Amino acid sequence: MNKIYFAGSIRGGRNDLELYREIIGYLTNFGEVLTEHIGDAGLSPMGETGISDSEIYHRDIYWLSQSGFIVAEVSTPSLGVGFEISRAIELKKKVLCLYRGQQGRKLSAMISGCPDIQVKEYQTLEEVKQIIGNFFTDDR
Amino acid sequence: MNKIYFAGSIRGGRNDLELYREIIGYLTNFGEVLTEHIGDAGLSPMGETGISDSEIYHRDIYWLSQSGFIVAEVSTPSLGVGFEISRAIELKKKVLCLYRGQQGRKLSAMISGCPDIQVKEYQTLEEVKQIIGNFFTDDR
Repeated sequence: MNKIYFAGSIRGGRNDLELYREIIGYLTNFGEVLTEHIGDAGLSPMGETGISDSEIYHRDIYWLSQSGFIVAEVSTPSLGVGFEISRAIELKKKVLCLYRGQQGRKLSAMISGCPDIQVKEYQTLEEVKQIIGNFFTDDR
Repeated sequence: MNKIYFAGSIRGGRNDLELYREIIGYLTNFGEVLTEHIGDAGLSPMGETGISDSEIYHRDIYWLSQSGFIVAEVSTPSLGVGFEISRAIELKKKVLCLYRGQQGRKLSAMISGCPDIQVKEYQTLEEVKQIIGNFFTDDR
């Protein structure tokens, strides 16, 4: 079964929490999502409790290394998401970034200019689902 | 002469622009700063003009590969800064992250929990200068 690493902002801000939850739910049609907690409404911008930052770091890098597919929602700027995308590329994973275009903002050039990332803009959840479906059925 | 890569938020937001300018100015005491444009007041959150995102990406990764030292200001969440820090670690560079502790916020666990990064909290520019001085005179 495919293992999927979903990346979304936690400490960078939880504005898109509901959207993360919807994306994670849809991703489970294509494999096991190792990072389901990203969509947990109980997870505040202060992050997980009862686990040290060092433990989170090593667990997440382990999960990333186990996953074949990385799907990142990149509309909310986040150090952790940027870090994970870069590491995923080094590990030769297949990486999809979902970006909701916003007036007066632009996606980081380190993401949009990177040849090893598929970046897809969307506006609606329906569009996200179509993009994800194509990502997992695409043979590249 | 040391080559230094300074990383700070551009498209993630320019709130700390003046601080970036001060840090870059101080860093020039320790080497050549390849990314001086990060402190340019003319550089808006829309990013550089007259250059494509692909060109920015490849130029920045080239500069990163040439630098021995990476200094990142990580108080403003940024995909690009997270990406660059991760890549710097893969390239075995010496990495310093400067973080201004803020009420109700926490630094990403991918930064604070990573064993290959020196993370230093500060509140004043004087503290930043002392931290940077130690970073460049420290023999580790």
